[in-house]
Amino acid sequence: MKFQGPKGTRDFYPQEMAWRNFLHDAWRRVSVRNGFEEIDGPIFESLDLYKVKSGDGIVNELFHFMDRGERELAIRPEFTPTLARMVADKANSLSKPIKWFCTPNLCRAERPQRGRLREFFQWNADIIGTDPSQEALADVECIFVLIDLMRELGLESSHVKVKISHRVKVRHILAKLGVSDDHMLGAFELLDRRDKMAQEDFIKAASKLNLDEDTVTRFDQICRMKYSVGNLSKVTEALGGDVDLSGLEAIDRYLQEFGIADWCEYDLGIVRGLAYYTGAVFEVHETTGVMRAMAGGGRYDKLVESFGGPSTTAVGFGMGDVVLADVLDDKGLLPADVAPRPDVFVIGMTDLAQQKLPGVVSQLRSAGLHSRFSYRSTRNVGKLLKEAEKASSRFALILDDQLENGIGSLKDLASGDQTEIKIEKIADHV
Amino acid sequence: MKFQGPKGTRDFYPQEMAWRNFLHDAWRRVSVRNGFEEIDGPIFESLDLYKVKSGDGIVNELFHFMDRGERELAIRPEFTPTLARMVADKANSLSKPIKWFCTPNLCRAERPQRGRLREFFQWNADIIGTDPSQEALADVECIFVLIDLMRELGLESSHVKVKISHRVKVRHILAKLGVSDDHMLGAFELLDRRDKMAQEDFIKAASKLNLDEDTVTRFDQICRMKYSVGNLSKVTEALGGDVDLSGLEAIDRYLQEFGIADWCEYDLGIVRGLAYYTGAVFEVHETTGVMRAMAGGGRYDKLVESFGGPSTTAVGFGMGDVVLADVLDDKGLLPADVAPRPDVFVIGMTDLAQQKLPGVVSQLRSAGLHSRFSYRSTRNVGKLLKEAEKASSRFALILDDQLENGIGSLKDLASGDQTEIKIEKIADHV
Repeated sequence: MKFQGPKGTRDFYPQEMAWRNFLHDAWRRVSVRNGFEEIDGPIFESLDLYKVKSGDGIVNELFHFMDRGERELAIRPEFTPTLARMVADKANSLSKPIKWFCTPNLCRAERPQRGRLREFFQWNADIIGTDPSQEALADVECIFVLIDLMRELGLESSHVKVKISHRVKVRHILAKLGVSDDHMLGAFELLDRRDKMAQEDFIKAASKLNLDEDTVTRFDQICRMKYSVGNLSKVTEALGGDVDLSGLEAIDRYLQEFGIADWCEYDLGIVRGLAYYTGAVFEVHETTGVMRAMAGGGRYDKLVESFGGPSTTAVGFGMGDVVLADVLDDKGLLPADVAPRPDVFVIGMTDLAQQKLPGVVSQLRSAGLHSRFSYRSTRNVGKLLKEAEKASSRFALILDDQLENGIGSLKDLASGDQTEIKIEKIADHV
Repeated sequence: MKFQGPKGTRDFYPQEMAWRNFLHDAWRRVSVRNGFEEIDGPIFESLDLYKVKSGDGIVNELFHFMDRGERELAIRPEFTPTLARMVADKANSLSKPIKWFCTPNLCRAERPQRGRLREFFQWNADIIGTDPSQEALADVECIFVLIDLMRELGLESSHVKVKISHRVKVRHILAKLGVSDDHMLGAFELLDRRDKMAQEDFIKAASKLNLDEDTVTRFDQICRMKYSVGNLSKVTEALGGDVDLSGLEAIDRYLQEFGIADWCEYDLGIVRGLAYYTGAVFEVHETTGVMRAMAGGGRYDKLVESFGGPSTTAVGFGMGDVVLADVLDDKGLLPADVAPRPDVFVIGMTDLAQQKLPGVVSQLRSAGLHSRFSYRSTRNVGKLLKEAEKASSRFALILDDQLENGIGSLKDLASGDQTEIKIEKIADHV
């Protein structure tokens, strides 16, 4: 009987794992240098926790189960509820602002498709509890962290764009256009789907919002408005003046001060599906190809409160590993050789050397050297050197009867140079 | 409404996460330098996969659920079935021997107690597909890796002991003693539980194996036999000669050659509960305090075959994070300061400096420096320096109007020394 892994999940053999580590190491390195501290929570939470943010509808998208005490639990489909719970739980003892990141595995009970799996990893970074006056700074620091990651991985501002909008401002604009409060949620959903809809479907859907034909056209224009950083006045102008863009103005200034203006653009069509965002929202999109969203986030000032914590400002983002790896692969930015290379491959030429080989290997490893040896019984040095090369070892250490004097032959497998060396000196030499 | 994390799981706030990373980094570093490649599999597998090795009884110990296609799935309670599946799936294309490690999170639906949680991490390392003649070498390399890890974490051979036995040899000894094939499994279970039983309970249970009083006493003696490495002949002697210990003899030699004899002892009472072990078995025990098992493993040559793969030799072990952390904590070997420290904390003294601060931070981070700044609106340098110290920053960079000339004051927070420096030179200096 042969088994397969569950569909929509991945087996990470050494090469796939090396790529996964390559991404996770970059996530960690960038998070740490930006002053974020790492956290994590349980792989499952009470099912109720996920209903707080997303309503009962979320249950169908979760893998859920009962424990023996009949408690309903679910594998985490996202990290934000755990984050909100952890902040709410220790709100008084945590010093502010909280800057946390994590790289959890998440599971969603959905049909697997390109870019969407049932288990995936997601980098999260959040800034929680800044003074409301520092809102824009925190928003832009989060955007900076995303861009710092992309630069770290070799992506350029021509490959990707951070699209920025603001839920409150868009609501204001839509209200001025004539969208009533009753239709506001529908209008947001329509904005969110605009890019994936045909023109006629859009018009049909927009007219259901009780808007006349002119206004639908105007609405369509707004969906498509894209302005570069430093040109906010043009947005106001295009909207016919009299629009309060104050929050965006501070963001605009910080984007320039952080030196990331060319990576960003304002796109009023970006609203993010989730209802809990309360201010700035942003998504990272690939600019060529299929324009996939690589990351998304925004401000969610009400969330910690809804999990039983105090009123707390918050902004953050999530970036999945699947689309990121696809984009890097498309651009040739996933290096082939990211697995750790052995420092020394130890070879015994004689019976005595072979017998004493474990002691030498033990000594090298204790000195911190990545050291291997062959499990084959052959004493053919040519074959064993081939094995060392296949393992991408930097050096081969060939042991013969000189081992009695604590000496071996160290061969540099790149240059072919070979030197006699005291075993105890190898760590310094390598 | 306030939520709590599910019982038996952990929230990893920054300090707990730093300790978790401290352990995981050690697991990784030691695995890599011993020539193991990292892998991972899905967080859930088909429920049937776990029945192959452990029978239907395992279901009660699992968190299991259905997906929308009515497939029965379970969160992984251990990694070995995934490992066996992955090896079986690519048995022909993987070059041998396979030396793999992983550090997965695992979940068990059991009652939480000291040292046992419902979610925990487990380090696994396995050597698969060596020639049968190299069995003892692979067994001992696995034991060496465990000891290398413990040394890396500051443990000494007086703190812990690797207890080694051999299922085939013990079966042979028990058979000679008069245990019939029918009672063999019961005898193994009794050996496994011996340490936790009162003398009279043991005698009662042993007599159910159809053994006379003398033999029960003899059996008890065998349970308690402990011999140091290099003294195998004494084991034979104690057993009245005529015992084939050939497999153990090779292990005995390698334990000495690897230089780890003083960390190990033979203990015929160690058999491991799991039925699938086919040769050497070993456990790591703390020698003081409550004698908790910190790790366990052994040879399991039939397992890959039972998952649909070819007949394949295999040996490996698992070490959980919970008991390991407890033991290190007891010995004072969990360092307090394992979280990453900031390199530079940037402070703006003037309005202009404060405005330009993001650009400086951006520049430092791009140079790879862990750089922070304050979210408070104060310009009080004393207060901001306190914040830098509280964050354990190595340096503070104080910016005033000299920033126009690309210059700031770099203060070493340990020595108090302060020097004027070009911003672009800071990375080299720090």
